[in-house]
Amino acid sequence: MTTPNAALSSRAAAVMPWKNGLYGHMTTASLPSGYPQFYERGEAARVWDVDGNSYVDLMCSWGPIVLGHHHPDVDAAAGAQQALGDVLNGPGRPMVELAELLTDTVGGADWAMFAKNGTDATTICTMVARAATGRSAILVAEGAYHGSAPWCTPRLDGTIAEDRGGVERYVFNDLASVEAAVQRRDGDVAGILVSPFKHDAGHDQELVTAEFARGLRAICDRLGAALIIDEVRAGFRLNLGGSWDDLGVAADLSAWGKAMANGYALSAVTGTASLREAATRIYVTGSYWYGNVAMAAALATLKVLREEDGIARLRSAGQRLRDGFAAQAEAHGLSINQTGPPQMPYFTFEGDTERRRLRLFAQQALANGLFLHPGHNWFLSLAHTDAEIDRALEASEPAFAAVRDQVEAGAVGA
Amino acid sequence: MTTPNAALSSRAAAVMPWKNGLYGHMTTASLPSGYPQFYERGEAARVWDVDGNSYVDLMCSWGPIVLGHHHPDVDAAAGAQQALGDVLNGPGRPMVELAELLTDTVGGADWAMFAKNGTDATTICTMVARAATGRSAILVAEGAYHGSAPWCTPRLDGTIAEDRGGVERYVFNDLASVEAAVQRRDGDVAGILVSPFKHDAGHDQELVTAEFARGLRAICDRLGAALIIDEVRAGFRLNLGGSWDDLGVAADLSAWGKAMANGYALSAVTGTASLREAATRIYVTGSYWYGNVAMAAALATLKVLREEDGIARLRSAGQRLRDGFAAQAEAHGLSINQTGPPQMPYFTFEGDTERRRLRLFAQQALANGLFLHPGHNWFLSLAHTDAEIDRALEASEPAFAAVRDQVEAGAVGA
Repeated sequence: MTTPNAALSSRAAAVMPWKNGLYGHMTTASLPSGYPQFYERGEAARVWDVDGNSYVDLMCSWGPIVLGHHHPDVDAAAGAQQALGDVLNGPGRPMVELAELLTDTVGGADWAMFAKNGTDATTICTMVARAATGRSAILVAEGAYHGSAPWCTPRLDGTIAEDRGGVERYVFNDLASVEAAVQRRDGDVAGILVSPFKHDAGHDQELVTAEFARGLRAICDRLGAALIIDEVRAGFRLNLGGSWDDLGVAADLSAWGKAMANGYALSAVTGTASLREAATRIYVTGSYWYGNVAMAAALATLKVLREEDGIARLRSAGQRLRDGFAAQAEAHGLSINQTGPPQMPYFTFEGDTERRRLRLFAQQALANGLFLHPGHNWFLSLAHTDAEIDRALEASEPAFAAVRDQVEAGAVGA
Repeated sequence: MTTPNAALSSRAAAVMPWKNGLYGHMTTASLPSGYPQFYERGEAARVWDVDGNSYVDLMCSWGPIVLGHHHPDVDAAAGAQQALGDVLNGPGRPMVELAELLTDTVGGADWAMFAKNGTDATTICTMVARAATGRSAILVAEGAYHGSAPWCTPRLDGTIAEDRGGVERYVFNDLASVEAAVQRRDGDVAGILVSPFKHDAGHDQELVTAEFARGLRAICDRLGAALIIDEVRAGFRLNLGGSWDDLGVAADLSAWGKAMANGYALSAVTGTASLREAATRIYVTGSYWYGNVAMAAALATLKVLREEDGIARLRSAGQRLRDGFAAQAEAHGLSINQTGPPQMPYFTFEGDTERRRLRLFAQQALANGLFLHPGHNWFLSLAHTDAEIDRALEASEPAFAAVRDQVEAGAVGA
């Protein structure tokens, strides 16, 4: 019998560029069999695929869903704005209110501007840094993902060498490599772009060291370059004031997206007063960038995060999940490396270099109603209540057991 | 007394990069005084600014509103989808249905892919063309707008020379200039990017000649390069099958946006079968690109355009407006040049090189409740009924009279 997911996959393969799955990060091409490509709906911490399977969802639509699907405050605000108007001949009140809220919330931010994609936001940051300094190079960490425009997309097909002519590489958490990159550009550095922590797909996560964060700040100050933090993936999950606020490090420019509007399409850049004039000189725009509905959704989302102690609740949910994973792994005699902040958890199995155990775990978790991705960090939302985390752990327990069985059978590595 | 628009402008200037108005195409910075920067709502063919003024709107949010604000079919489809879910862990049925509808509608289109900005769509086209051909150059018409990424933004601040390293210029409607551009690149041409007609801001519009359209097709065929039509601004207003369908010219790649979803944020690329494999190789993606709500809105929008003879109705509304403008101008002894297709009308005053008459006309029209832009083409929607067009003409009549009075007074040029 053909399932709805299989039927839609066949239809998509006929009318879309399709290679065992969709283009982009949501493709199933690299996933174990059994992962659905098409989804039906979402509600709080759960998602349903088109075959009717429901999952406790640890991907949160790859980040945007930070309060849970259909949070009543967000949907009410968005719905009320939709009834007035979304994309008009110019922006409306919600944009100004959101710029006020962002500059009030994010440490060091004196202004905000808005776009649609995370890539728009990171690209705007490079443009503001270049306009302000008159310099060319943007330093970017090896392996870091900052979007899919030709200057930053991780795959070279369809790009030309010039697209990356302004990019110079360093190694995350390695200040000497940053200094070497500065040297290679003879100091012609407009900005240093960095993620709040290393969350490269397919790798263990790595938190930033205080030395590195403060060292980047000092290098940027010395050079008169912009410190650009790409908060698109992690922003508003670690610290509402900026992901490095705890370290006492504020960005000159920050790129925001995903969590800021609980799934409504919006990204933003915030910057310091000294870069405001440069920001007025660049020309960036988009047909839908001033749409009111996403702004209204973002206002509601950030208010909930602020007023309901969102960060602490996300961290607590992540820690409960992490503690449960640790106990289950230990009970089955399996060693796992849990990395990154609890709000964006991820683990790999010790010595599982080909990810065979992790893929088996993910596949078994999926079959038991827990959705996570074996090659990308996970995300928590405020809808991940204790009961939902416990349900996730009910699904992960037999997945760990399956891994243990296959390890004992010698089927997934030593 | 401070108006709401003035109050919001002050607040925005404090928390956004603001230079006598917003960044981007919706800025009031270059407009005559009196234009509002902030809007409250839209309904059918009317918009309201935050000061409570209402206008018959000839900008249609700069293109996206093709059926009128709050078209019931579109809002019902979008609302029903929103109740299920928008951005999930992957796409849903609406994306596949929309790809089917697009490939069924657009001549020569065998596949479709989706993004958020028009700029995303034009950029994807360049990437597919480069991936397919292994060549570098994209030929672009002098003065044409194809988006605001560093490779195409019309202002150079914040960009570096490398950003435009893959762009070679030609002159619209001038085949010899295209051949010269090909020569300058020694045939290393991945694609030729062109708008359906010349709709550069600040200029009279210019329709494409059949010779030019067919000539571009022939040059691309000879070179094995991709003919890329940027339909973002004009698409689905001139011909649902592609803007050059009447000329018998089909694109290899087309970039779509604006009108396709009646204001919901969506863009798309369509392409021919021979480019499908290249499209699977590039890596492009976005956090919200597979959102279901905009796909559902686009399905409803295109169905209305198809089933209600949308193109003919838009053309008829534009012609009624154009005939009215012509009669009013003549009655006041004023010569105007009406250019472009009726669905996207625009006119300038003869000999008005500094646009003083046009700016006065626009300002007076605004004061009388008709919203249009003196430096950018206008747009019609299906909500522009005969009654709305007649109301627009009631507002334009005293605006022409004011121009005549000022011409006679020698205040706005000879």
